[in-house]
Amino acid sequence: MTIDLEGARKVLEAQPFSVLLGARLLAFGDGAATLELDIQDELLQQNGIVHGGVLAYAADNTLTFAAGTVTGGSVVTAGFTIDYLRPAIGTTLRAHAHVVRAGRTRVICRCEISTVGGEGAETLCAVAQGSIALPQPNGG
Amino acid sequence: MTIDLEGARKVLEAQPFSVLLGARLLAFGDGAATLELDIQDELLQQNGIVHGGVLAYAADNTLTFAAGTVTGGSVVTAGFTIDYLRPAIGTTLRAHAHVVRAGRTRVICRCEISTVGGEGAETLCAVAQGSIALPQPNGG
Amino acid sequence: MTIDLEGARKVLEAQPFSVLLGARLLAFGDGAATLELDIQDELLQQNGIVHGGVLAYAADNTLTFAAGTVTGGSVVTAGFTIDYLRPAIGTTLRAHAHVVRAGRTRVICRCEISTVGGEGAETLCAVAQGSIALPQPNGG
Amino acid sequence: MTIDLEGARKVLEAQPFSVLLGARLLAFGDGAATLELDIQDELLQQNGIVHGGVLAYAADNTLTFAAGTVTGGSVVTAGFTIDYLRPAIGTTLRAHAHVVRAGRTRVICRCEISTVGGEGAETLCAVAQGSIALPQPNGG
Repeated sequence: MTIDLEGARKVLEAQPFSVLLGARLLAFGDGAATLELDIQDELLQQNGIVHGGVLAYAADNTLTFAAGTVTGGSVVTAGFTIDYLRPAIGTTLRAHAHVVRAGRTRVICRCEISTVGGEGAETLCAVAQGSIALPQPNGG
Repeated sequence: MTIDLEGARKVLEAQPFSVLLGARLLAFGDGAATLELDIQDELLQQNGIVHGGVLAYAADNTLTFAAGTVTGGSVVTAGFTIDYLRPAIGTTLRAHAHVVRAGRTRVICRCEISTVGGEGAETLCAVAQGSIALPQPNGG
Repeated sequence: MTIDLEGARKVLEAQPFSVLLGARLLAFGDGAATLELDIQDELLQQNGIVHGGVLAYAADNTLTFAAGTVTGGSVVTAGFTIDYLRPAIGTTLRAHAHVVRAGRTRVICRCEISTVGGEGAETLCAVAQGSIALPQPNGG
Repeated sequence: MTIDLEGARKVLEAQPFSVLLGARLLAFGDGAATLELDIQDELLQQNGIVHGGVLAYAADNTLTFAAGTVTGGSVVTAGFTIDYLRPAIGTTLRAHAHVVRAGRTRVICRCEISTVGGEGAETLCAVAQGSIALPQPNGG
């Protein structure tokens, strides 16, 4: 049984680390998920840009939520790769992930992470690709 | 000109996101760096284990600090891969990274992320491999 | 100075390993490249499907050719990630890569690798993401 | 039931692509595997160095054989990441992989790929990290 946007938001709210970072889910369904967070000072590194760890968090979580839209139950991130493209500067960080292939044991997703400018224009800052594992009868 | 452990700690303290997470540098030098943070409730996900985004932050930052031990100046993470091995449960999270190869434009590092138990025993929770870029005359 | 499809085909023909595998370039330009090869018996593994190493070769080479469409000169693959999605079975293997972001020192590309069926229908078998380095004045 | 070095060599010989490349297994057991191949002209790219696709093949196959030493049955590579460190030049290419963590559904391994010089000295050319999936009762 999969969950809907409201259910997914409850999962996000139950993640203390996501609450600490102020993450919110904008979309969840049909093999895709969108997560956003305000770029507050506490998310920066020493040069005034968003810390790479924040982008990596956004990749990890959005990849996993995207996988969650097509699986019947809980999932766990197996791993992912992130390539940084540009310094992330702005007021909002937005991550969008979609399912590339949903197998019975693994779901492969891709994610684009952007900053959003004043009029909604997105600037791509990082891309990620990851593998999410479905729980198996014999564990893992 | 490279920096020493004290200088590296100043860089870490200048990262608001690292301060938010409570990260501290244990070692920095000779092609390796060790970063630690207390596993506080706010770093968890919905099942009571450390959020994957925290492990990804630790990988990103420790890989980059390790590279910083061998470069003469500032560096920027180009990208990395992380594979999660076990749920991270415990009181302390420790990431150790070392340089595999320092080229003139890129430094490749590997990182092991563990939880530390009561008597100092480490349980490996994730492994990462990443590429850190050196600033170039013609930018990038 | 970038090269055109004919020039890129000459580069491919100058790669003995690509000749050994029978690779051919279908498209090259505008930030994208498409490479194809016939699935001959010698490209298989022990279960009659295309060896993962062949898909990895296709990813490596197509990512690099895609980057070559936007750079003025030679490039070198810095690294890449590949996720396998399905067993590759069929008569033709096709890899399509495109540039995600062309910086001055690195070009990030993504690649999709498919088998092509009798009537041209593609079945996605693997996805990759990689980083291609541009030669720098100070080497690397 | 796991296999021994002789059994693993039979698997390698049953891979037409490995036969095409001339790969041989030097070691197989105890969570590690070593694969070697002669650097013949047909494995090169246009500049006289070993094609990245050959190194990627070696990573893919050696990671998977290493995983095979600890699993009771067939395995399939889920995906891997490779970072190239230096041009691969020499007479022999050697890949060594070891298991980092063997779970019940996935085995995570790391791999080092080197060229071997006249007196046995190894020069590290690439490092890889990958995930190998065990077959599951419900497929995947």
